[in-house]
Amino acid sequence: MRYTGLIEHYKSRLPVDENTKLISLGEGNTPLIHLQNIPALLGKNVDIYVKYEGLNPTGSFKDRGMTMAVTKAVEAGSKAIICASTGNTSASAAAYAARAGIKAFVLIPEGKIALGKLAQALMHGAVIIQIKGNFDDGMRLVKEVAEHAPVAIVNSINPFRLQGQKTAAFEIVEELGDSPDYHFLPVGNAGNISAHWMGYQEYNQAGKSAKTPKMVGYQAAGSAPFVKGKMVDNPETVATAIRIGHPQSWDLAHTVEQESGGWFGSVSDDDILSAQKLLTEKEGIFCEPASAASLAGAMADIKSGKIPAGSKIVCTLTGHGLKDPDTAISQCKGDMILIDPVMDEVKNAILDNM
Amino acid sequence: MRYTGLIEHYKSRLPVDENTKLISLGEGNTPLIHLQNIPALLGKNVDIYVKYEGLNPTGSFKDRGMTMAVTKAVEAGSKAIICASTGNTSASAAAYAARAGIKAFVLIPEGKIALGKLAQALMHGAVIIQIKGNFDDGMRLVKEVAEHAPVAIVNSINPFRLQGQKTAAFEIVEELGDSPDYHFLPVGNAGNISAHWMGYQEYNQAGKSAKTPKMVGYQAAGSAPFVKGKMVDNPETVATAIRIGHPQSWDLAHTVEQESGGWFGSVSDDDILSAQKLLTEKEGIFCEPASAASLAGAMADIKSGKIPAGSKIVCTLTGHGLKDPDTAISQCKGDMILIDPVMDEVKNAILDNM
Repeated sequence: MRYTGLIEHYKSRLPVDENTKLISLGEGNTPLIHLQNIPALLGKNVDIYVKYEGLNPTGSFKDRGMTMAVTKAVEAGSKAIICASTGNTSASAAAYAARAGIKAFVLIPEGKIALGKLAQALMHGAVIIQIKGNFDDGMRLVKEVAEHAPVAIVNSINPFRLQGQKTAAFEIVEELGDSPDYHFLPVGNAGNISAHWMGYQEYNQAGKSAKTPKMVGYQAAGSAPFVKGKMVDNPETVATAIRIGHPQSWDLAHTVEQESGGWFGSVSDDDILSAQKLLTEKEGIFCEPASAASLAGAMADIKSGKIPAGSKIVCTLTGHGLKDPDTAISQCKGDMILIDPVMDEVKNAILDNM
Repeated sequence: MRYTGLIEHYKSRLPVDENTKLISLGEGNTPLIHLQNIPALLGKNVDIYVKYEGLNPTGSFKDRGMTMAVTKAVEAGSKAIICASTGNTSASAAAYAARAGIKAFVLIPEGKIALGKLAQALMHGAVIIQIKGNFDDGMRLVKEVAEHAPVAIVNSINPFRLQGQKTAAFEIVEELGDSPDYHFLPVGNAGNISAHWMGYQEYNQAGKSAKTPKMVGYQAAGSAPFVKGKMVDNPETVATAIRIGHPQSWDLAHTVEQESGGWFGSVSDDDILSAQKLLTEKEGIFCEPASAASLAGAMADIKSGKIPAGSKIVCTLTGHGLKDPDTAISQCKGDMILIDPVMDEVKNAILDNM
């Protein structure tokens, strides 16, 4: 049986009916990978799983929401969609618009865009509008222009996005046979942590899980409005996907924190990059910097004893490492050996590095 | 039930037993996507599916073979693996070695390596050995050095690679309920077309399919030994993943051609890049240039009438487009608009581009 995407798979729990034309690229159904080496390095008895959302079609979790948002935009007769995006949302919007045969407009802040992310939106035929301002200016303009031009907004304020994203929690419950004890996510706009909580609650109420997890959101220290308790005007972090000072899902995320018994925390850029490198070198899993905020946060809370021994933890890895090769390369310089093409030189290079 | 990779899923058909420690990153289980827009553009009544192998953990089909190769290397007690690779194999080898806790050595030709691919091997902690020579020199050296140093070869001459890769054919038969009529693949070393044929034959003999497909291999015109009928010493193509002049699976691939009733063909770099762009713009699916050789070939054979109306075709997309953002970006220059952050400028940009 061919898997044809998360809407078809979970259609009884999503706002579609038999007449809805589904716009899908086979998103969802991502692996939940059990870490085998990092818990031992931490010296703690915990089970850590990572949900590798980078294996969605455009390389990030955004596809879960975008399949719903674009399906509903097409159902409503829209011929174009628009979003402001630091990268992953624009890639996803452009891909699903291409699949649907409609136009995508993408507002991006000038500068600091990861090459891989921009390449995607361009390749998918989106019209890229660079604004002389930051992400928050872009978000304001998207809202304004949607009232004056014939375009549907597909940013996370689009309620269908969260509906699609909640399916990640469904998958995790099915994969583990219950909810985990803790679920760590990187937090930018805070839509994803809110969507996961919706999914966990829905499955719990339906009797598919015995419990719900504590939801823990981690931000980059230079872009941490939830930790500071107020909006941040000039957010700065190497983790571009969560460089957001004015989160859209402010109230929702605070409700999640309270209802689930979870918390928000922040980690430095160094901690984020270290966690990314550790995961790549010790587990073979390459995620983008923002994704590693979840693991960096989990490791900090495990080390401090905040997470009790025996806990089962899920960390969401929101995007693939290939989304941001430049940041990766910048951490690896000087690691190459150059030799003549003769066997003895190869052999010596190997023996010197075993 | 958690999906834990293709070896666990197909273990009765793979050379492992209950004592084998499986080295997996959740590879396989990739979507088979039905093209909705391109067949209409061709004006032909054909069903085209793409197997999106770019959604494997390291972004290419190589993971299917590498999970087997590294699992068997570890089972045999190896503490290091080695490969010569234009990119995807090295990324995959490095990732699975990291997961297994062993060392990976990667021989690459000097220059012309896609950034994203190199970033992966480096991030996964592989030791990169650049040789002043081409891919074929690298392959020769790998074979030589494996006899003089304690490393296991994981290039496609490793027979376990093909065992893992054959599972893609299993998935396709299960997804379609039978084999397709034609299966198009990009051909470099020709290991993958050979592995798919093994899989189709095995499932057919087991009664899981009623037929087997004609296997069609497409090469880049500047790197087309199977089309020329002889080895090519200085292969050249933008599709770096199939820039191979001396294929390892020369005899195997000719057997596949004869047994399946298929053929080899070649397409120009322009055709490859056009097919890549078409797939990205019209279907929302972003693959690396080499991958698009399969679709470019299929489109040529559909247009020429070689493929009869009503046929069901699968094209393998071997790697994700994010593997080679530079080539993508170079096709897209000048497509961006720069404006001040005011609503009227956004609105005008939209209306000018609807």
